[in-house]
Amino acid sequence: MIRFFNGKVLSMNGSMDITDGEVWTDGDRISYVGPAKQERPVFDREIDLKGDLIMPGFKNAHAHSAMTFVRSFADDLPLQRWLFDKIFPLEARLTPDDVYDLTRLAILEYLAGGITSAFDMYYKREAFAQASLDCGYRMVLCGALSAGDDWSVGDSDCEKFNSMGPLISYIPGIHAEYTASTDLLAYMKGLIGRTGKPFYAHNSETRSEVAECIERHGLTPTALFEEFGLFENGGGGFHCVHMTEADLEIFSRRGLWVVNCPGSNAKLASGVAPITEMQSLGINLALGTDGPASNNALNMFREMYLAIVLQKLQFRDAAVGDAAEVLRMACSGGAGAMGLEADCLAPGRLADLVVIDLDQPNMYPVHNTVKNLVYSGSNTNVRLTMVGGKVLYENGEFFVGDKPEEIYRRAQISADRLTKD
Amino acid sequence: MIRFFNGKVLSMNGSMDITDGEVWTDGDRISYVGPAKQERPVFDREIDLKGDLIMPGFKNAHAHSAMTFVRSFADDLPLQRWLFDKIFPLEARLTPDDVYDLTRLAILEYLAGGITSAFDMYYKREAFAQASLDCGYRMVLCGALSAGDDWSVGDSDCEKFNSMGPLISYIPGIHAEYTASTDLLAYMKGLIGRTGKPFYAHNSETRSEVAECIERHGLTPTALFEEFGLFENGGGGFHCVHMTEADLEIFSRRGLWVVNCPGSNAKLASGVAPITEMQSLGINLALGTDGPASNNALNMFREMYLAIVLQKLQFRDAAVGDAAEVLRMACSGGAGAMGLEADCLAPGRLADLVVIDLDQPNMYPVHNTVKNLVYSGSNTNVRLTMVGGKVLYENGEFFVGDKPEEIYRRAQISADRLTKD
Repeated sequence: MIRFFNGKVLSMNGSMDITDGEVWTDGDRISYVGPAKQERPVFDREIDLKGDLIMPGFKNAHAHSAMTFVRSFADDLPLQRWLFDKIFPLEARLTPDDVYDLTRLAILEYLAGGITSAFDMYYKREAFAQASLDCGYRMVLCGALSAGDDWSVGDSDCEKFNSMGPLISYIPGIHAEYTASTDLLAYMKGLIGRTGKPFYAHNSETRSEVAECIERHGLTPTALFEEFGLFENGGGGFHCVHMTEADLEIFSRRGLWVVNCPGSNAKLASGVAPITEMQSLGINLALGTDGPASNNALNMFREMYLAIVLQKLQFRDAAVGDAAEVLRMACSGGAGAMGLEADCLAPGRLADLVVIDLDQPNMYPVHNTVKNLVYSGSNTNVRLTMVGGKVLYENGEFFVGDKPEEIYRRAQISADRLTKD
Repeated sequence: MIRFFNGKVLSMNGSMDITDGEVWTDGDRISYVGPAKQERPVFDREIDLKGDLIMPGFKNAHAHSAMTFVRSFADDLPLQRWLFDKIFPLEARLTPDDVYDLTRLAILEYLAGGITSAFDMYYKREAFAQASLDCGYRMVLCGALSAGDDWSVGDSDCEKFNSMGPLISYIPGIHAEYTASTDLLAYMKGLIGRTGKPFYAHNSETRSEVAECIERHGLTPTALFEEFGLFENGGGGFHCVHMTEADLEIFSRRGLWVVNCPGSNAKLASGVAPITEMQSLGINLALGTDGPASNNALNMFREMYLAIVLQKLQFRDAAVGDAAEVLRMACSGGAGAMGLEADCLAPGRLADLVVIDLDQPNMYPVHNTVKNLVYSGSNTNVRLTMVGGKVLYENGEFFVGDKPEEIYRRAQISADRLTKD
């Protein structure tokens, strides 16, 4: 049991107001949020917040974490060429050990940036899950099946990764329409029917992806997935940059999640997703970095800033956007998309939280702390990151088993072997 | 005399290559850059870089530093309304003490982000200069005269602020065409003639600014300044978002500097300056944050990322942009625009430099450190900031006279008094 006291609390439980108060944890859950109390249990540790802010951790709702190996390796190429000529051939060489070490590198970056879980699509899922478990980190795996894989593993994967305890979970999905077959889509329909789970995929990231899908099927990716009945249990899409009004209507009606990835969409010149319009339609929104090859950081402060300023730029209106809504997307929204009870600080919710150091120059003056976080916050403000009731990062130190130097060393060896002939 | 050893050196002296080596300082200048030597002088301090990177500091080539007081106070408004309805009325209340304290707050943020000097346009210039001197910080003042001021102070300001020692200098300028009169422009012509100095102004930040200038004068701001002979000694413009081909020709022919401010231009929905085209025309480029009211951070890592990804997004081409050129803009470019001998690490240059911590997750793997800096770097990577041979920031600690807590407290008092009725 841990007590955080003498701080400011942004619980995100309903309002985005900040109040003075305390947060207590018990095991991997939050046990109390509110004003200081005279009577309290005996704690294992009491952490004096010294006026700093405690709030739900960031959720990186779209990632390919182990792609750390291609960070700064294949930049400045168009998406399709980048993916098919550069990335896919290198990925074919990945071993489970590579994915283990490269995922741990990403987890260090997540923790240093206050990110308490990621919604990850990648290969070598056992090694990925093991890396998360060994670090004490929370990950939601997205199926990411494609026509080229043995996609019949969808059922067994769903069972296996949903039986690994509270840190690991699995949601069915395909990589994208353009790497799927109608057989795979039919299989997915069966899988979501058998498991009762939602469905996710890369969706409408580029203009050409949508145009080619229409050419193949006479339907946009969203309409195709809907026609196959894949959204019966909810779910959503990653990117959703080039959506039609009919696509948005499907997302709105079914309560689907759009995972906005503004950094990746800008760097790959894919465009700007119309999240302001999506918000006005009541569509659920979360925020993701995408993989480190296309971003290249795993940094939700940067992503929040991009999410809001790219709306202003795209729609030529400086008044567009609401910082509090963007912060909510980044924390509570991700939890909703990922099916995690970590959307707010409240008794019974997962103790996945972050302490923000407010005593830094970019947080002054204090007119509006939520705007300070979105418009001028940075990873320097992350003082502590807790996942499942355990402190995994505090004041620049990591508590994930191996020392960071060892994780860097091993990730570098993998990256070198994979990228050099 | 200080010795930095056992590190990697990105001197920016000609190439953007990184080599193993040492950097020595003597007083406020660099005395040696190169491989380790057996024979060396006695140093006051020897700093083991432990493999970290030493490079020229970032130069924030456009700022209104003391506008920290309106950070997160008046966001999400169009530029002209923001400026005339919100900002100007509050600025009328500023006292010299306010500017002193609010500038020191900005200096803390600069130091924490590896920014070794700023090119600043603001009021109460004595108080601003005193804040810089008291912190040991380097600032270049830009005149920022406007028709509403007593602009006859241009001559005496130029003399006064260029006689304050090596940390302070002054370059003539006006706020912008839309706050100038033809009398003021004629005075500026005289001033640059008498002083031999270059000329700067806010230039073509918004479409309406350009349209209204054409309506008033039949010329764009750049063409008007050229017609008045203001660029005889060089200079440049801040923003330069909406430039005609003829404007770019003037900038190219006269060797003027464009100071790109991508964060501010995005947040105020002003647009994206065509820096890729400018580069291809050989126009000199520097990078700035603009003031903390319109950005809202003073963070050159974020600005570098925006500078390059907004080009890709705007021109729908992921292949556009060169990370090394953007890093050069942010460090050497600023020095060129600001007239500082701080463009590279070389004997005789100012010892304005930064040590980058490479042992953090966002700097791994090491495929290309320059790309890592631009695409995934952040203020967390700033280990040490040196201005004029003095360490002003190291491992999270500031060495600027007063403790940061005292500077935060005083800045908050000013911000509260200025913004609350």
